[in-house]
Amino acid sequence: MTARGVVVIMSDILSRLAETLEARKAADPQSSYVAKLYAKGLDAILKKVAEEAAETIMAAKDGVREKVVYETADLWFHTLVLLAQQGIHPDEILNELARREGLSGLVEKAGRGKPGKEDA
Amino acid sequence: MTARGVVVIMSDILSRLAETLEARKAADPQSSYVAKLYAKGLDAILKKVAEEAAETIMAAKDGVREKVVYETADLWFHTLVLLAQQGIHPDEILNELARREGLSGLVEKAGRGKPGKEDA
Amino acid sequence: MTARGVVVIMSDILSRLAETLEARKAADPQSSYVAKLYAKGLDAILKKVAEEAAETIMAAKDGVREKVVYETADLWFHTLVLLAQQGIHPDEILNELARREGLSGLVEKAGRGKPGKEDA
Amino acid sequence: MTARGVVVIMSDILSRLAETLEARKAADPQSSYVAKLYAKGLDAILKKVAEEAAETIMAAKDGVREKVVYETADLWFHTLVLLAQQGIHPDEILNELARREGLSGLVEKAGRGKPGKEDA
Repeated sequence: MTARGVVVIMSDILSRLAETLEARKAADPQSSYVAKLYAKGLDAILKKVAEEAAETIMAAKDGVREKVVYETADLWFHTLVLLAQQGIHPDEILNELARREGLSGLVEKAGRGKPGKEDA
Repeated sequence: MTARGVVVIMSDILSRLAETLEARKAADPQSSYVAKLYAKGLDAILKKVAEEAAETIMAAKDGVREKVVYETADLWFHTLVLLAQQGIHPDEILNELARREGLSGLVEKAGRGKPGKEDA
Repeated sequence: MTARGVVVIMSDILSRLAETLEARKAADPQSSYVAKLYAKGLDAILKKVAEEAAETIMAAKDGVREKVVYETADLWFHTLVLLAQQGIHPDEILNELARREGLSGLVEKAGRGKPGKEDA
Repeated sequence: MTARGVVVIMSDILSRLAETLEARKAADPQSSYVAKLYAKGLDAILKKVAEEAAETIMAAKDGVREKVVYETADLWFHTLVLLAQQGIHPDEILNELARREGLSGLVEKAGRGKPGKEDA
């Protein structure tokens, strides 16, 4: 496996998480933390986004690196729950970020190339 | 280019953004929005994280899909600025998310495999 | 003037601020910070509430007493702007706090006595 | 009792709450919600401030008056817990607000007048 292979798997994490979060929408509310959160509804998810943003801020003020990593992961996780609840794939966020940074050409080229085989 | 090719590029977005944000740390504070934000310091970055979290929450309450995409991109962007300021690569966040979701096996395998051969 | 006189004036601060904020709703948007904020609308006010909550949190993490006083004043001020924009008097918030703390008897007694003259 | 009587009692609410919150600092952590919150420490209090700010924002977005009153009360309550934890009396916040609004003259006059006579 090459360095490029690692990149693929890194990216897979957001997509896999999105898949898992999508699947849990149909699950018994008692079956998992996320299923319970969906059942509580949008406001409960948004409260968690606020809370995790606050914890990220506090971790950065504490200046403890591992806490910043941990709390940012919590924040991203709960925004992924929000996205799933809203029927938005994380790729739409990445696309928006790419568009702003002038990377959209690449994404579009990749998009156009999707059915292609030439560089497989 | 295959669907897998797209995935690579999608992932590249976070890494490319991280690179860009890293580069701007050395830039003239007047040269860009992000360079100015770094110059203002940690509290200014954290205020933006709070503000963008609030805007994501308001967009979701408005129930306007494009606004949720736009504001979540803003929130992720400013957490990426925070990570850069703290010397943390976004892969560390993705790794933490993978670890929690039981995907760590994959990441570790990829990591171990880095110099590897079998699927090169 | 007695110590009780001071208490009256302390309380007057919230009521006077509420009056000032009410008056600014009719003012030229360019005439003051608050008039400008009203003109921007609800979301702009709510963003300020989020931002000031974050600054209060950061001040407390810094452990600098004067900053906590200053930022909490900012937070209360912007909630007063929100209340004014929503047509809610701060006394309604104080009443709600009193009700929870079992002080409602006092407030009601005061309320009932309002038209009275006996202790004027 | 006159309208002025109501004002006195209104103001008492913040001072009485401050007294209650002060007293609970010495209480058994299991004896009340607030005692438990103190025992958890500053970060737990700050998380509640963030959460209640978010709920105030959501209530305003819902446009439901009673919810705005209720959530703003929650937000003020938790800032009062923070102030108590930091050894700050709510009058310091009111003083800061008065100072900004050019009402400080009144407060100072009241302060100077404390031992006074004319309306005793």
